[in-house]
Parts: sequence; structure tokens; C-alpha cells
Amino acid sequence: MVVDALLREPRNMSVGVVTLGLIGGSLALALRDRGIAVSVWDRNPTTRAAARDAGLTVFDELEDLAATGVDLLVVASPLFAMSDIMARIARTVPTHTTITDAGSVKERVRGSVNAAGLGPQYVGAHPMAGTEKSGFIHSDPHLFEGATWGFTLAKDTELARAVLVLQFITQILSGRALITTDQIHDDSVALVSHLPHVLAHALTGITATSPNRDVAVRLAAGSFRDGTRVARGSAVRNQAMIADNSRAVRSAVERAIELLSGVRDALESGEARAADLTAFFTLGAPIVSGSEGATVSGREVAIDQADWVHQLLEIGAAGNLINAVTVGDSVAHGITVNILTSV
Amino acid sequence: MVVDALLREPRNMSVGVVTLGLIGGSLALALRDRGIAVSVWDRNPTTRAAARDAGLTVFDELEDLAATGVDLLVVASPLFAMSDIMARIARTVPTHTTITDAGSVKERVRGSVNAAGLGPQYVGAHPMAGTEKSGFIHSDPHLFEGATWGFTLAKDTELARAVLVLQFITQILSGRALITTDQIHDDSVALVSHLPHVLAHALTGITATSPNRDVAVRLAAGSFRDGTRVARGSAVRNQAMIADNSRAVRSAVERAIELLSGVRDALESGEARAADLTAFFTLGAPIVSGSEGATVSGREVAIDQADWVHQLLEIGAAGNLINAVTVGDSVAHGITVNILTSV
Repeated sequence: MVVDALLREPRNMSVGVVTLGLIGGSLALALRDRGIAVSVWDRNPTTRAAARDAGLTVFDELEDLAATGVDLLVVASPLFAMSDIMARIARTVPTHTTITDAGSVKERVRGSVNAAGLGPQYVGAHPMAGTEKSGFIHSDPHLFEGATWGFTLAKDTELARAVLVLQFITQILSGRALITTDQIHDDSVALVSHLPHVLAHALTGITATSPNRDVAVRLAAGSFRDGTRVARGSAVRNQAMIADNSRAVRSAVERAIELLSGVRDALESGEARAADLTAFFTLGAPIVSGSEGATVSGREVAIDQADWVHQLLEIGAAGNLINAVTVGDSVAHGITVNILTSV
Repeated sequence: MVVDALLREPRNMSVGVVTLGLIGGSLALALRDRGIAVSVWDRNPTTRAAARDAGLTVFDELEDLAATGVDLLVVASPLFAMSDIMARIARTVPTHTTITDAGSVKERVRGSVNAAGLGPQYVGAHPMAGTEKSGFIHSDPHLFEGATWGFTLAKDTELARAVLVLQFITQILSGRALITTDQIHDDSVALVSHLPHVLAHALTGITATSPNRDVAVRLAAGSFRDGTRVARGSAVRNQAMIADNSRAVRSAVERAIELLSGVRDALESGEARAADLTAFFTLGAPIVSGSEGATVSGREVAIDQADWVHQLLEIGAAGNLINAVTVGDSVAHGITVNILTSV
């Protein structure tokens, strides 16, 4: 449904962005600044007025925007609103429009998409960017520069649509895409985003309920400040984020309890259990050393049209990021991806 | 044993600093820069040579430094070396010398001090400052500027010695002192320093052992970076720090397990347990709001000589910091402290 000519000149794509929170607003401003045709919608009339003031093309009705048949429609709404928004889009959107999103829990978004009958048009995306702030007023066109995006495929994803969204991320927004499945994405963000939020709230909660609270807060220095930073954002938003990914977060919390129980037991036993304590303190060594200062090198990989889902998932599973996608005469002949590999 | 004349002119105090790691080295350089008479010792000849190059008065033998009878001797050694160093100091130090330290676990240091028979000369101190770096080579004379120091009293602490150390912290080093007991200090740093280290190592450990490790590390953003920062320092040093405060850390870890078990159960039960999730996410609200941007006001409080331990501990228990101490004609007539109160 996506024409080859567009994939050879992705800067010609027209994009719709709904809704205009921090993520959607920042996306719309970034696209405007890069000369991409962008139209937007938000539920809130005040936000729509602010978007008009920012020079954006604003629709008052979501169904009217969807009906224009933009090449790519990005749904950047909160997760709780996804089902309603996808159902409204489905009323008018033509089948040639590709739909993506910016939601932080991919299994849940795909559920909303499939319920609306939009599954064949959809590719999942999740920019790993954001701040503690929210709302169009805090939008920043530079928010996504150099950002890594989670990018999720399913069995029924169409190659041409996947290429369009990869080009949107890499060529239009100068980001990098990590290709994976919905479930691995959700399990991974539970570990590296949602669990850190839970632990930050545990730290503030334990300290706030301690009889030594006033002394402890005064003695707090860098490790407490860093360890609790994300608990200083909106507790309501953090709770919703964790609840939205409850299956995966529950599993990550269970693993945290398991490791902490080992620490507790090792401390109880004194010197006799020093080896257990050492095992705990060195468990993370592979990623502590690996995640800092890793140099990367780019290389081109040809992706076969017949086996593309498997090939792209393998690239992502090894931790490689997609940096660019090029299409020859036709996507039917396969594509070439430039990947960044840690060396 | 500390003469009133010195307490009225604390800048005349002579200070010894042993040993010269990051903390001891930074202290010695700060004292040198402020024109305080400072002499130093370290076990390592190379470090002693570097200290001489930095213009410090260096002793080759700890016992010789202790025998000089400095007014204040600061033991800034690692905790594991405290017992040995206190025993060596006890061989030659005169009773008029006041001894303090920079150790992060006060019950343990006092045990070493008492075993060496130095209890009546000792006042506990712990600067809440430091970096992931270590060693004299990384010493920074500005490390303690504006720092809060834990300051611990026991039943046998002498008022004049407590005043001398408070003046050292506040007038000589421009720091602030939070007065408490050894146990409350150790319980508090377990919450706000040691538990954050344990949780940071839990985060890196869980991620490193996940089957999705390579994907997860690539999707990690700010919350993971901040939540794991202290796990990127020395695992050996972090483990020793936790093991040194095992009683209090064990209790903090137990409380973390308790809270996380509640989160796990609430996630298992879905919407029915949303109230439990809300309770968890809002538990830390009192300190999240209280620990940022709190304005402080100074006020003078007269401390009665007869009841001074109780009075000072009450000031600290409420989270007030000592900013300055002044002594009139004689410490026997009591002292005046300037305290900083959150308003």
C-alpha cells in the first residue's frame, strides 16, 4: 500500500500527529522545522489554538485529519486514550495510511489497534525520550535528536510500512531504531525504565515512613538524589505507567525481591556469606562496563524480502541499532539497512 | 581538656589528618589553603611524597604525629583500618588531643575507639561528601564546601571536645553539622546512601542477567542511568560499605522487600488493587516535596551546660543543622549555637 516512490524519497511523506502532549507536540515541531508536511489534532481546544500559533496545520476533528490520507499517522496519546482514538481513526482512515504510535507499552497498543481493525496498517514505535514535564507547552523540537526508538514487528506487519516508519525515525528525525517484538520490548522497558521508577518510589517511601526521616533527609547526598529523581515527577503518571505494563513489571519486581532477599540473608549471616554478597555486587558488571563509552561502527546489511521479519529481529536481538534504510527500485527486491554495532 | 582560649579562637587549632585518601587528602588541602596548621600521615610512602610536594607537613610514623599533641586528630582511613590505626594512636597521643574521624558507620568506629581506650577523647563525624573517585591524587580542597556532616554524640562525650569539632566543621571548613547518635546516624545513612547503592546494583544485576539484556541496555534512558550511577563505581568499595553497616542496611533492605512485595501483589490483582498501588506511589510525597527548595532561616539557641547532650540531640532530631558555635568566657557557662531551620 506504500508506494515505492515514497520509500525512495521519504522526505516527501505527509505526517499526521495526534495528540499534542510533550511527545506529540515535540514531534510536530520537529517535523515542522524539518520542512515535512505535518497536520495535527488534539482533544483540547486551548492546545489546538497553541498549535496554530506555532504555525502547525490543526484539525478540529480527529476523523477529518484521518480522512486526509496522510502517509503516516502517529498516535502519541496517553495509553488510556489509545483504544478510543484508534476506533475514531478507523472510521475514516484510508488503507494506504500507515499508523504508528509513541506508546510505552507495545502489547497494549497493539491490542487497541487490532480491536479497531487497523492491525495490517500498524507498526509499533516508542521513542526513548522524554522529561519529567508534560504538555504541549513544554514541547521541544530537539527532544528526539539522537534518540533510540523501540520498534516492534508482528507476524502481519507489511515490509513497506516497516520501511516507512524506519525512515521516519532515522532519516526524518535523525534517531536510531531497535527492532524487537512487542513482548521483548515490554519486558525490556520494565527492566530499564519501569523498575527504576518503582525503586525510586520505594526509596522515597521507605525514607518518608522512617522514624529517622528528618535526620535521614538531611544526610541524603548524591546517591539518594539520583536514585529518587524520577520519583519527583508525577506520582499519578508513574503509577499509570507501571500499571499499564503490569505483567512485565510484576516479573521485574519479583526478580528484584529475589535479589534483595539474597542480600538480606547474606547480611544476616555476616562474613560467612561474603561470597554471596560479592556475587550480588558483581552481577551487573557486564552491562556497567558495556554500556559506557562503547564505540560503534556502521555497516550495511542486505535484507531479503522473503525472510525480512526474522532478519530484522535478529539484528535487534543482538543490540544493533538501525541507522538508515535504503530501498532500491522496489521494496519487493528487498532493502538495505545500515546498522550500528558495538565493537 | 580543651582550653577555653582555643574555643574562642578556633582558627588557632592545630590539626592532624590520617590517612590521605580522597577524604583525608581533601581535608588536608582545605586546611592548608585556609592557613590552619596541619600535619599528615599515610601508610603509603608514595602518597607521603605526593603530600610533601603539595606543601603539607608529613610524618613518616603515625605514632610520631600523634605524639605531637595536635588539638584535633582526624582519622580519615577506610573503616577496616580503623582498629589498627586507633590502637597505634593510643600508644603516644596525649589526653588533651581530641580525636574525630570521617567514617561512614559510626557504631563501628566508636567500637574501634573504645577498644583503644580513646572513648573520652572522641567525637564522631562523617562528611556527606565524596565522589566515585578515590586516592590522594583526586583530592580536592573544595570537596567539603557547604557539606553536611553527620556528628555523633555518646553519653561520655565532653562538651568542650564536641564544641571543638563543631567549630572545625562549621567555622574552619564552612560546613554544617547534623547532630545525632551513632545508631540513628547508621540507620539514616543505610536509608539514604547504602540502600540506594544496593538498589542500583540490583538494577544492573537484574538487567545483566535478563535474556533480553542486549535489547534492554539499548532502550535504557535517563531513569536507568540515574538509578544505576553509583553501581558504576567500585563494586568492591560498595560491597565493603554495605557490609560495614550490615545491621542497619539489612533492616532497610527488609523494608524494601516489604514494599516491593506489596507492589507485586497489587500488580497481580489488576484494577482491584489500584488503591494499594496508589498508596505505594504516594508514600514518599512528604519528602519529595520537603527536600527540594526548602528555605532555611538561622537562629541562635543557647545551650545549657547541664543538659547539653539532650538539647543538641533534640535540635538534630528535628532536622536542624548547626551552622556556627560560639563560646563566651568559658564553656562551663554553656554555648550558643546558630541553627538552620527549614521554614
